[in-house]
Amino acid sequence: MRLTVHDIARVANVSQATVSKVLNNYSGVKESTRKKVTDAIEELKFTPDSVARSMVTNKTNTLGLIVGDISNPFFAESAKIIIGKAQEKGYDVIISNTDHDDENLENAIQTLISKRVDGIIISSISRSSMRIKKLHENGFPIVLYNSRVEGDSSNSVVLDNYRGAVLAVDHLVGLGHQNIAFIAGPTKYLTTYERYLGYREALEKHGLVLNTDHVYDGEYDYRKVYDFSYNLLSSPDRPTSFFATSDQMALAVMDAAASRKISIPQELSVVGFDNMSISANAYIGLTTVSQQKENMAELALKKLISLIEKTESDALSIQLSLKPELIVRKTTSAPNKK
Amino acid sequence: MRLTVHDIARVANVSQATVSKVLNNYSGVKESTRKKVTDAIEELKFTPDSVARSMVTNKTNTLGLIVGDISNPFFAESAKIIIGKAQEKGYDVIISNTDHDDENLENAIQTLISKRVDGIIISSISRSSMRIKKLHENGFPIVLYNSRVEGDSSNSVVLDNYRGAVLAVDHLVGLGHQNIAFIAGPTKYLTTYERYLGYREALEKHGLVLNTDHVYDGEYDYRKVYDFSYNLLSSPDRPTSFFATSDQMALAVMDAAASRKISIPQELSVVGFDNMSISANAYIGLTTVSQQKENMAELALKKLISLIEKTESDALSIQLSLKPELIVRKTTSAPNKK
Repeated sequence: MRLTVHDIARVANVSQATVSKVLNNYSGVKESTRKKVTDAIEELKFTPDSVARSMVTNKTNTLGLIVGDISNPFFAESAKIIIGKAQEKGYDVIISNTDHDDENLENAIQTLISKRVDGIIISSISRSSMRIKKLHENGFPIVLYNSRVEGDSSNSVVLDNYRGAVLAVDHLVGLGHQNIAFIAGPTKYLTTYERYLGYREALEKHGLVLNTDHVYDGEYDYRKVYDFSYNLLSSPDRPTSFFATSDQMALAVMDAAASRKISIPQELSVVGFDNMSISANAYIGLTTVSQQKENMAELALKKLISLIEKTESDALSIQLSLKPELIVRKTTSAPNKK
Repeated sequence: MRLTVHDIARVANVSQATVSKVLNNYSGVKESTRKKVTDAIEELKFTPDSVARSMVTNKTNTLGLIVGDISNPFFAESAKIIIGKAQEKGYDVIISNTDHDDENLENAIQTLISKRVDGIIISSISRSSMRIKKLHENGFPIVLYNSRVEGDSSNSVVLDNYRGAVLAVDHLVGLGHQNIAFIAGPTKYLTTYERYLGYREALEKHGLVLNTDHVYDGEYDYRKVYDFSYNLLSSPDRPTSFFATSDQMALAVMDAAASRKISIPQELSVVGFDNMSISANAYIGLTTVSQQKENMAELALKKLISLIEKTESDALSIQLSLKPELIVRKTTSAPNKK
């Protein structure tokens, strides 16, 4: 025999609506009432079956979160913040990992939709993707986190990436660096591309020439970034500083420098982008551009839930751009005088 | 009108079984056949609806993965490995984060079951939990990863944690350390408790006295571990070395040491446990006990899927214990002679 919400309501002596609220973890239920319901569930050995429930309510109270690489602390820390905030609002989160692969992203969206998530937050997507455009136009609740698609009106929350890169270059030039290598990563991502534009135009502003041999625009691969940095640090025209568009890649540069016995910051300055937790560790002390993960997560989630719950009078889409901040720590200093 | 597998099979001119295989991402389907099916899906604008499908097949090809703290790279890197290996075998993975909280764990299990996952991998659970025992006895497919419950026959894959801790202490004593502080974390986790026993008995073996003021057994909280370490490093009876039961906590010790301008390894040696990726970074170079994440994930997943697919002739449960390895890097050396 299958137990129903009706059975629980009867045993708990509350309304079916109250049982639903407790099952869906809504706020605004008195603790004593919640206890009546949970006791009834315990008594009846009832497993709330969200699959069956979703057939009726058409809502699963589950969000999808698509990340580019869960092993990169920027994504893992973002995921933790998003999960925490979603839980407070009564939503579970399913995480999918794409390894920055377009086909995996396509599959992840398909899988999440087929599992009937109420909406999706995407934190890694090519700037030319047509897929999001279609979903957005079809009215499927979707918000891009630290991502944006070119010429698209999908909802997105990003940092002002161009400005963030300018801050990083200004800092290095201000210290006296003229030979600044750049670890960009793939410029098919709009956030990365904007950081690349910021790097290029900041150099120009300071009258410095961009050396394409000193720019890495390959994939996000720790080993490849390490090798590129190691080789560049072994070349005659060795840069005095590196700016990387992620802390994870900045750590790969520092790994290569340490392997070459090059001391930071005495012989090499390094600036990252993200401000992951470990960058603040005093042993590491990475100078970086802060991403405001907390703010981005809060805003992205708020928008997504308002789309799902249709609480907004107007379905205007948003493209938010937050102000970046440079955090100076111990990986940057004036270059070595020779 | 609702489209069905039958419709796709008709358009693609293949059997319904083949369509199912493609939808469920099974291997062993020719690329040309797969394309026929995906083209038909595209043509019909079919969204495979796993919720409806699960009502029929009673299988969702989805696994649950419960982690203690997704922002700890040990868990994030484990998740990435498990997701990758599960995908190869045709399973999606839903990640739940518990923040090492027993009630959250209970909720996570409940949520995953209600979303009809085929099985669950749990990577953080109290050694006294009765919950797993019940699920195991009810025949629900479940495997513990880097976790075990005392006196329980649930399936588990762990490291020989006792032996791992002994390796770490032997290494420090071998270098000449006699004052070895210990960052244990909560001993309600069996893995942590076994590392504690290893620490205690290794000290005894070397004729050293355990100083409980030098042992941290509070919760996994970066700030608390940092504060404990900072205070201990400011005390007259300052230890010459720390052994932490996770790399994440070892990094908190290094953070505190760097803040106190104590240099590693000249004035303080640090040993971690896990061997997360960043510990191998030459800039950091943390000496640590390797967890064999790849092996643990492979074995846990293999067991879980055999339980789900009932491919084993015998439903014997397994408790695997892998051999630990100490990886010596640059955070350990002989203590300062005074």
